[in-house]
Amino acid sequence: MTTRSIKDIMHSIGEKAKAAAGLLAVATTDQKNTALTASATAIREHAQFILSANTEDLMAAEDKNLSPAMIDRLKLDPSRIEAIASSLENIAALPDPVGTEMARWQRPNGLDIARVRTPLGVIGVIYESRPNVTADAGALCLKSGNAVILRGGSESTKSSAAIHKALQIGLEAAGLPLDAIQLVPTADRAAVGEMLTMTDYIDVIVPRGGKSLVARIQADARVPVFAHLEGLNHVYIDAGADPDKALNIVVNAKMRRTGICGASETLLVHESFASSLPAILDALANAGCALRGDTWACTMDGRVTPASDDDWDTEYLDAILAVKMVSDTQGAIAHIAAHGSGHTDCIITENADAAETFLNLVDSAIVMVNASTQFADGGEFGMGAEIGIATGRIHARGPVGLEQLTSFKYKVRGTGQVRP
Amino acid sequence: MTTRSIKDIMHSIGEKAKAAAGLLAVATTDQKNTALTASATAIREHAQFILSANTEDLMAAEDKNLSPAMIDRLKLDPSRIEAIASSLENIAALPDPVGTEMARWQRPNGLDIARVRTPLGVIGVIYESRPNVTADAGALCLKSGNAVILRGGSESTKSSAAIHKALQIGLEAAGLPLDAIQLVPTADRAAVGEMLTMTDYIDVIVPRGGKSLVARIQADARVPVFAHLEGLNHVYIDAGADPDKALNIVVNAKMRRTGICGASETLLVHESFASSLPAILDALANAGCALRGDTWACTMDGRVTPASDDDWDTEYLDAILAVKMVSDTQGAIAHIAAHGSGHTDCIITENADAAETFLNLVDSAIVMVNASTQFADGGEFGMGAEIGIATGRIHARGPVGLEQLTSFKYKVRGTGQVRP
Repeated sequence: MTTRSIKDIMHSIGEKAKAAAGLLAVATTDQKNTALTASATAIREHAQFILSANTEDLMAAEDKNLSPAMIDRLKLDPSRIEAIASSLENIAALPDPVGTEMARWQRPNGLDIARVRTPLGVIGVIYESRPNVTADAGALCLKSGNAVILRGGSESTKSSAAIHKALQIGLEAAGLPLDAIQLVPTADRAAVGEMLTMTDYIDVIVPRGGKSLVARIQADARVPVFAHLEGLNHVYIDAGADPDKALNIVVNAKMRRTGICGASETLLVHESFASSLPAILDALANAGCALRGDTWACTMDGRVTPASDDDWDTEYLDAILAVKMVSDTQGAIAHIAAHGSGHTDCIITENADAAETFLNLVDSAIVMVNASTQFADGGEFGMGAEIGIATGRIHARGPVGLEQLTSFKYKVRGTGQVRP
Repeated sequence: MTTRSIKDIMHSIGEKAKAAAGLLAVATTDQKNTALTASATAIREHAQFILSANTEDLMAAEDKNLSPAMIDRLKLDPSRIEAIASSLENIAALPDPVGTEMARWQRPNGLDIARVRTPLGVIGVIYESRPNVTADAGALCLKSGNAVILRGGSESTKSSAAIHKALQIGLEAAGLPLDAIQLVPTADRAAVGEMLTMTDYIDVIVPRGGKSLVARIQADARVPVFAHLEGLNHVYIDAGADPDKALNIVVNAKMRRTGICGASETLLVHESFASSLPAILDALANAGCALRGDTWACTMDGRVTPASDDDWDTEYLDAILAVKMVSDTQGAIAHIAAHGSGHTDCIITENADAAETFLNLVDSAIVMVNASTQFADGGEFGMGAEIGIATGRIHARGPVGLEQLTSFKYKVRGTGQVRP
């Protein structure tokens, strides 16, 4: 396909999305939920079809020598299919944000002013190999009243198309426009470039994928982007930390799952906690975690290898932890300001003053006291589901759930008021 | 100055703003209020100095043959100086949004999650001739904990610099960094280009000025922009309208002040309201309003001249109103969707169903029932003050007051929780 025809294709998709968004904005909650539950049923009924499409993608992936990790992310099986279907049902069960009053007040002149949630409009989702994102992102956008343009990775083309068909069946069952959830039909990368600059048609871009994908999108997008580049998260063990809590939290924050954005990458330790640190380093080493550290940490434990300057700026996404001594809470805060990514940072302490200082001064989307950074997740926050986590300061910050996929408008009800 | 040195100047301003923002984010409410009230005092004490600077600007403006309207916007006098000072005091009296809890909830595992307002960071304000924007925008950004980079129009250079000095006196009195409110020292337009792309230093741009300024900024900015391009506002008189309310609202919405963004530009009239329309057209004509209209309106009143296609897309900002017949509420909504600017639109009706339909289906920042569109203003909404009105859907929509100049973060308080 030529670049010119890709531009035409994408603009046509954009136009159709915008038209669908107008209808979706006034769709009832029942209609949207009917679409979601009918989609879940279609996913289950057509599981064999989806699995067979997935097999085609997997065969192509093996021909292309994709990494085992990438193939694992791509692979569907009956339990993953069931997870996709039940995720659709879970999103149907969430409260509909559209139309809810965020605030309402009366003015002295009698004007009644309500701030009411509305959809954003059209969301563009750009993702890599996981085909389940097709269903999850499509469903979250639908429930929040937004039309969505999905652009999946080239390696999952057939799986995503099969899942997309199930979503279309759901939309049709609910009498909603099929253009509400569109899948970009070309693997040409020029399609992504078009999406990033289609400010007339797309209101927000949500990238789902690795750092290089997100960095490219942030650099090139003219459309607003809800994203995080990386989760370079810190756990700081304060002088006033409880050693047992510290051990549990540090091991969980690092090792529960090392590949997620909420995993911690750097451990900062108050010097006066030194005597309790060996037990934590033991637990980490026993769990298979490689340790790198400053001179202090290397001296304390022979398993700690010297960290280079780069280590403090590295999101390992692996069983590796960088360990560093700081002399006080301010030192921890300064290290995080210099090296953090504004995602999730945690203090472990029993000292209420230190906790409040940390909560107030650490400038990250999520700041925690005495809890694992792996709680950085919309589901864990009680939002039901998330389309991603944002570290920007505009509109969405932290987990991006249904509410963060909405805008608002003011409804002003008067009885004939004119302005003096 | 060369473009290169402007780039250096602007990046140095950006760096200093970012450093100041870090300090401002943790400034107390008392400190910020002290700065504002001390600035107000300085404005009054140095009124002669400010007026003399303004005289220099006015003399230069006359040499450049600026329009009388522009010269009026530029001109200061003792009452305008007093208005600037009392506006600073009014902003000091507003509640501080920073640190307020927007929401707080507990999870079943005991985690306590609070969503807390934080400053956005650094705001860039680009404005034209009104020197009072220097004080108003500076004060709103300061109160919301943001550092601000002010770039005023070249014609108000000396007036803005004089007002800026008073703000610096206030910052100094409060022990706050002088870099919290910086004024770009060059009139070179390349400085604006730098601001629009300084994504490392500026979090949001707020333009204050005419359509051409805003259009240029929206086209070129890589930094998010809170703005409206125009206020092409509609008043729709429904079949169920009260004729007296309709008359008062239509005249006020058009004629109270014709040059503000909340003024209405198009009057849509339900055909069955025809018998009550002449009194309204009389009142408008008597108030000095020129009338343009469709064939229906021209037939009804000889003073109505035929509207061209362009009239429905024109923000007159003048004593001109375009009048058109529609056959029902849906027709009015469709006209607004096709021609509106998403700013403020109003229905006049006693029919509750029509009112709710209009409130729900009109996709504008502010949708009104039975009230003048000239209430589209942060002060009138009870926000205390506004830095502008936004028609975008991201982050801020409608009046942009102190709350809209904030972001938020999550504070998560645990007691040792780890994620299973």
